[in-house]
Amino acid sequence: MAMEQVSTNRSFGGEQGVYKHVSAATGTEMTFSVFVPPHQPGAKLPVVWYLSGLTCTHANVTEKGEFRRLCAELGLIFVAPDTSPRGEGVPDDPAGAYDFGLGAGFYVDATQPPFDRHYRMWSYVTQELPTLIVENFPADMERQSIMGHSMGGHGAITIALRNPGRYASVSAFAPIVAPSQVPWGEKALAGYLGEDRAAWRGHDAVALIEDGARLSALLVDQGSADPFLAEQLRPELLENTCKAAGIDLTLNLREGYDHSYYFISTFMADHLRWHAGRLGVKSE
Amino acid sequence: MAMEQVSTNRSFGGEQGVYKHVSAATGTEMTFSVFVPPHQPGAKLPVVWYLSGLTCTHANVTEKGEFRRLCAELGLIFVAPDTSPRGEGVPDDPAGAYDFGLGAGFYVDATQPPFDRHYRMWSYVTQELPTLIVENFPADMERQSIMGHSMGGHGAITIALRNPGRYASVSAFAPIVAPSQVPWGEKALAGYLGEDRAAWRGHDAVALIEDGARLSALLVDQGSADPFLAEQLRPELLENTCKAAGIDLTLNLREGYDHSYYFISTFMADHLRWHAGRLGVKSE
Repeated sequence: MAMEQVSTNRSFGGEQGVYKHVSAATGTEMTFSVFVPPHQPGAKLPVVWYLSGLTCTHANVTEKGEFRRLCAELGLIFVAPDTSPRGEGVPDDPAGAYDFGLGAGFYVDATQPPFDRHYRMWSYVTQELPTLIVENFPADMERQSIMGHSMGGHGAITIALRNPGRYASVSAFAPIVAPSQVPWGEKALAGYLGEDRAAWRGHDAVALIEDGARLSALLVDQGSADPFLAEQLRPELLENTCKAAGIDLTLNLREGYDHSYYFISTFMADHLRWHAGRLGVKSE
Repeated sequence: MAMEQVSTNRSFGGEQGVYKHVSAATGTEMTFSVFVPPHQPGAKLPVVWYLSGLTCTHANVTEKGEFRRLCAELGLIFVAPDTSPRGEGVPDDPAGAYDFGLGAGFYVDATQPPFDRHYRMWSYVTQELPTLIVENFPADMERQSIMGHSMGGHGAITIALRNPGRYASVSAFAPIVAPSQVPWGEKALAGYLGEDRAAWRGHDAVALIEDGARLSALLVDQGSADPFLAEQLRPELLENTCKAAGIDLTLNLREGYDHSYYFISTFMADHLRWHAGRLGVKSE
């Protein structure tokens, strides 16, 4: 598959690139970023996927995530996709709201017109983009981990739950854990998947666990001053479900932290070290 | 002096704030950012000043500089001013160019109309803002260091040269070291200070050193792939002048790095550790 380099910048001894390609999954041009750490010629490196939250593109974490230092130290490739299809002909929220449509793909393959044509972020992130990555970067796809923020935390956990064995580890910052039970998720899942709530369960982490899906271990950091905590994020739903299912969840409530990249960047190194340990990378 | 809080975010255990105030120096509202690291109640902390480059505001380094981890570890307050006055009635480059006027104050007090009314960044950075900082933050003004990027490297070095003893240490990323000898500087100094080149020498690091100003030590990092290296930055002019003057310059040429925050963030920790050592802060 062809891709085009938008930019590359040397950083922390590696290369931070931004790329674009025409996606078969979404039928649009898609942009993503990849950091490749310094490495020996011919080496194949483990891959960490980072799925972003509402309103974001690849650029937010690429500029503000402070992941490169640790990825360079640990030898991790870091991939950051966009959060929705974009461009001419891609339908948006009818009212232009930030929580549906552009920047808000919710990592599903939509079944409802007019969104079903382009909003296929599940297929894009789980199938098409991994193929592009392995073809163009020194990636060892036997060693992958996945993480995300908010809507991207929802994406990371649901994708890992439905692809058992693919990811060595899963983590999230302030994830949406039960979209079927919160306003952001109810709006998005109804809009993309229709009113039948049975179809939502495959894109709801808590429901997937209730229905028998399992993870080996899960790390979540959540800020106590996050304005979306009580209404949209509700980590206690994940906590209760993991406890009932015997899933090893580490849930860190971080006093005074909000929903921003000032929070994410603070704990990024912890998450990357945690993933590295499960990817068989020797951490300091 | 009154100031208003625009935002604060908890980060790396400290507080990243953005503030604004009406500046007497510039006659405009000015915005700046301050990171206060975690500290004991009543403690007074050393201050690192960071002056930004062309086109930047306080936001670029605040979002992309990756300085908070080290400032938290070392106990450093980090202050990032804007790069020019802004707002209604503030004249810009007549052609709207990026290298003069808004976002391009060059850290001088302009003498030429119409710029002399608002473009007083020298007074703002050296006098007014320090007073505001000491009144509103737990700052120990007996322990200050200064650093900057590009135009802000020019600002940092010239300010330190003309205020001997005020700053424990000075460093820069890709600084403009001899504005009188390069296109960016010739345009800016002529526009702000007039055609008489004698008036430029007080705002030209190389000229100041030639005229007898001294620094105890200076750290400079410069990317070899910086597109402005040969025409605008010319670090060899600083190197030669420091050698002749006996100034202890450490000039690191960084292979493959450009002029961006991908470069700056890579070496930010090195610079902050270097400053901390000269501020009497114990580094790891």
